[in-house]
Amino acid sequence: MVHADASTFAEGITKEQAYQQVLDQAEGLFFEQRNWVCNLSNAASLLWHAYKSLPFPSNQVNWAGFYTLDPLSPPTSPQLILGPFQGKVACQTIAFGRGVCGAAAATGQTQLMRDVDAFPGHIACDEASRSEIVVPIADNVKGGVVVAIIDVDCSVVGGFDEVDRLWLERLAALVGGACDWP
Amino acid sequence: MVHADASTFAEGITKEQAYQQVLDQAEGLFFEQRNWVCNLSNAASLLWHAYKSLPFPSNQVNWAGFYTLDPLSPPTSPQLILGPFQGKVACQTIAFGRGVCGAAAATGQTQLMRDVDAFPGHIACDEASRSEIVVPIADNVKGGVVVAIIDVDCSVVGGFDEVDRLWLERLAALVGGACDWP
Repeated sequence: MVHADASTFAEGITKEQAYQQVLDQAEGLFFEQRNWVCNLSNAASLLWHAYKSLPFPSNQVNWAGFYTLDPLSPPTSPQLILGPFQGKVACQTIAFGRGVCGAAAATGQTQLMRDVDAFPGHIACDEASRSEIVVPIADNVKGGVVVAIIDVDCSVVGGFDEVDRLWLERLAALVGGACDWP
Repeated sequence: MVHADASTFAEGITKEQAYQQVLDQAEGLFFEQRNWVCNLSNAASLLWHAYKSLPFPSNQVNWAGFYTLDPLSPPTSPQLILGPFQGKVACQTIAFGRGVCGAAAATGQTQLMRDVDAFPGHIACDEASRSEIVVPIADNVKGGVVVAIIDVDCSVVGGFDEVDRLWLERLAALVGGACDWP
């Protein structure tokens, strides 16, 4: 199988089936490959193509990717820095605690925003984004410290639900353990 | 301006104008930001959206992104490893000298393939790709050693010409000098 086939999703599958394929393919791609840039780049592609294969509202996802802990930020004021993604150009750095991404990084808790306009201090990298889910990725080797986040934006309100939370948290656990983090 | 606007290209612009916008926006995004993952992620997004705004054959581009020198590969047998990109899942590693990407990395010369099937040893990450351009990125701090490549694939034969070569080599020069390479 050529690699591109991993991001081909069948018509008519459920969201659960699409996420299951993302996890299965990610696990295969991560086999004997622990480079975090390589693995996050392919994972962003898997997520993007999964959403595009699904019905409304999932197919309205307009950004899917990762931010990681900026190695140049001081431990006393850590910040996220843009990692591999699919979608339009995005904000380069986000301080822990700032916006939806920063909240997930600072708390270690998934942030599921039905309407980003309802979140105080939301950072609008793209004004088209109306809902968002952000899932922290912990490095268990480093005692569970947040080393990255999964960030997915959608151009409609209510783009994500508890199914997305469940499966993205599974993906975060897989990614967290499958990469050597800087 | 929100960041996403950087990847919005006007209708009806020429290929030269689209590439000029890519360079202008990249230069702005790289200002005071030398993290290579962050910068390559945004550059891949700029390229992808530029191609999608252009007429045939540029709008048939099906992969745009980067490979970088794999820090774990020995200097005696260097290999490329997948970096940030937009498009379908891709091959993780490519030995210097292997395929179109490996040829660009090994020779330090742009490879413009009108028809990838005519290239002996072409690596088909995606069978849909029919033409390809690969431009080496040199780190002038390290004496011009190839640290990365720009790789763009197109689903039709003859997707790229000398205009693409000229502008992608300008982008490679900008990226090479704008990032701290590992």
